[in-house]
Amino acid sequence: MNVDPLERFHAVIPAGGVGTRLWPLSRASAPKFLHDLTGTGSTLIRATFDRLVPLASNRIMVITGLAHRGAVVSQLPELSEFDIVLEPAPRDSGAAIGLAAAILWHRDPNIIMGSFAADQVIGHEAAFFEAVKEAVHAAAQGKIVTIGIHPNHPSTGFGYIQTGEDLGIREAPNARSVLKFVEKPDEEIARQYLASGGFLWNAGMFVAPVGLLLSHLRENHPALHDGLMEIARAWNSDTREVVMADIWPTLPKISIDYAVAEPAAVAGDVAVVPGVFDWDDVGDFAAIGRLHRASAEEGTISLGHTDSRVYADRATGVVYSDGPRVIALVGIEDVVVVDVADALLVTTKAHAQKVKNTVEQLKADGATEVL
Amino acid sequence: MNVDPLERFHAVIPAGGVGTRLWPLSRASAPKFLHDLTGTGSTLIRATFDRLVPLASNRIMVITGLAHRGAVVSQLPELSEFDIVLEPAPRDSGAAIGLAAAILWHRDPNIIMGSFAADQVIGHEAAFFEAVKEAVHAAAQGKIVTIGIHPNHPSTGFGYIQTGEDLGIREAPNARSVLKFVEKPDEEIARQYLASGGFLWNAGMFVAPVGLLLSHLRENHPALHDGLMEIARAWNSDTREVVMADIWPTLPKISIDYAVAEPAAVAGDVAVVPGVFDWDDVGDFAAIGRLHRASAEEGTISLGHTDSRVYADRATGVVYSDGPRVIALVGIEDVVVVDVADALLVTTKAHAQKVKNTVEQLKADGATEVL
Repeated sequence: MNVDPLERFHAVIPAGGVGTRLWPLSRASAPKFLHDLTGTGSTLIRATFDRLVPLASNRIMVITGLAHRGAVVSQLPELSEFDIVLEPAPRDSGAAIGLAAAILWHRDPNIIMGSFAADQVIGHEAAFFEAVKEAVHAAAQGKIVTIGIHPNHPSTGFGYIQTGEDLGIREAPNARSVLKFVEKPDEEIARQYLASGGFLWNAGMFVAPVGLLLSHLRENHPALHDGLMEIARAWNSDTREVVMADIWPTLPKISIDYAVAEPAAVAGDVAVVPGVFDWDDVGDFAAIGRLHRASAEEGTISLGHTDSRVYADRATGVVYSDGPRVIALVGIEDVVVVDVADALLVTTKAHAQKVKNTVEQLKADGATEVL
Repeated sequence: MNVDPLERFHAVIPAGGVGTRLWPLSRASAPKFLHDLTGTGSTLIRATFDRLVPLASNRIMVITGLAHRGAVVSQLPELSEFDIVLEPAPRDSGAAIGLAAAILWHRDPNIIMGSFAADQVIGHEAAFFEAVKEAVHAAAQGKIVTIGIHPNHPSTGFGYIQTGEDLGIREAPNARSVLKFVEKPDEEIARQYLASGGFLWNAGMFVAPVGLLLSHLRENHPALHDGLMEIARAWNSDTREVVMADIWPTLPKISIDYAVAEPAAVAGDVAVVPGVFDWDDVGDFAAIGRLHRASAEEGTISLGHTDSRVYADRATGVVYSDGPRVIALVGIEDVVVVDVADALLVTTKAHAQKVKNTVEQLKADGATEVL
């Protein structure tokens, strides 16, 4: 192959995940990626798409739930029908990203795909482009390449990647081998990781030749691989929906990390390119407080309805309202208020991660209409 | 007069005051006294009325704003038309209570009236009855008698009454003279008052012969006195409304404390009977937290719509909602959440008094539709 690896690059945007910690703003019917959480004027999925256009041009595929088809099409009207993969029901990232790889492989087995979640925020795009380009070049050398983020604090909310030796790839000078992936650590361990300098945050970004990704999938999870390939074969035919309906519900639920990345790392096939850019997965309302463009300007950040009227008296925090009513915050710091038609959340930035527990409680109580 | 003084007793309930610190629950269109703030099942005005029936039977008069006529009649259907005094606009307590005194004086100049605000909460009713009875007997001896509350903490939110010598009235053995009324003190002074034992809280309860009250009013504020007497003369005639519309807007705005109680105290005409019962003016949401019958039972107190669903996860406080939506409180202590159709308040019990400032800000911004 003498084709420039960048010409072989296709971007894939998995748009799944409800964003439970952002309830009741983010919910099953309007998940996180459909919101403008950082005040840019773009939803997260639109911003993700726009960020990939300079790298992939119109070679961008979105994988999302059937329920979100309308919202995604309205956000991304330029997307062709063949580039929207609709899941009848969520079956975890192994099936989602694996299906994208299988469909692309049937289009052209030389494609190098890059997977970038629809609900992440990235600052300093030039550095992002550089990292992706290096990752594509490293992938062209037969690697599954993840982009790891330089940690700026000892986060216990992310998984980490332990880096190994320099791979000596001319067009990917920062690419290193991956020794292992590690789960979210406790704070003590996270501090050690930060101090050692040998660990990066796992942002879930993968760049890989589709053939290599599928071969690891076949080796580790043959049933998943075979099912996805059968769906992919039918993709451009009129049996697509029948085959999808038949096979999709039978596929094992497993994350792409367990299904491909970790076994491939053990096999020595995974590389990492450090990303030296701001990155956040906007995991909770505290993240919105940090990331929102209004953060530096004001004590309280107002999101949502443009006519909502927030009165803050010795109060700071994040307020989302979907209506025009008056919201008064008096003498309360770092508060999080999310005010939507059928639910109201009041918490603090420090407890933003705990919102998940309330969502679980609501689910246990059968209050699915507000989830 | 050989009539038992208790037979001469008429109760008057001034039902005014918006309760600014209880915004947005209490507001111009639905002030504090029209709410059940303590979970008894009765609005404050209904509870006040019921508390006075054993003392005054059907000799109870209510003074309220014209705008609240419908709500008051629906709360107190037994009230006769002659016992509802409607103010076209608020002109402070001097005019309101003075008008009640003048109307009662025209009915019978021997009436002893007792004024009890519509928005106070009283525990231990037997002790309240005893105090009122003593006050009526002391009033029959030619005194304006206030019922002062035994302070149980150095409150800076109430005015105080400095007590003098025992008056030696046989049927009012606890009645003492009043040395002076003092304004809300700072905390240091409040502690001294509490330690001295010679100070009671001024709860704004007055019991007085209507003639004596009016004579002090005539002496100190003749224009107010004369205007009120002119309205009272027309009260049972078909010129009532014309005279009221003519005179009421011209009356000076002054509180009954300044208009009558303080000058009468200087003249040696004021007595006080200590009230040994729980009393609160439910001045803010922190008071609701203390007073609500559910306080002892649960971490969060839910008021309002019976179907509201409050989920508290490591959270305590007071929640009022007028709708059926889910309210989730996560990791927040002593919070106050008031959720009504057009406004949302989030504060803490410690800042409950500051709600007033926000109301003033809203007023300054012309947001009268939510006040």
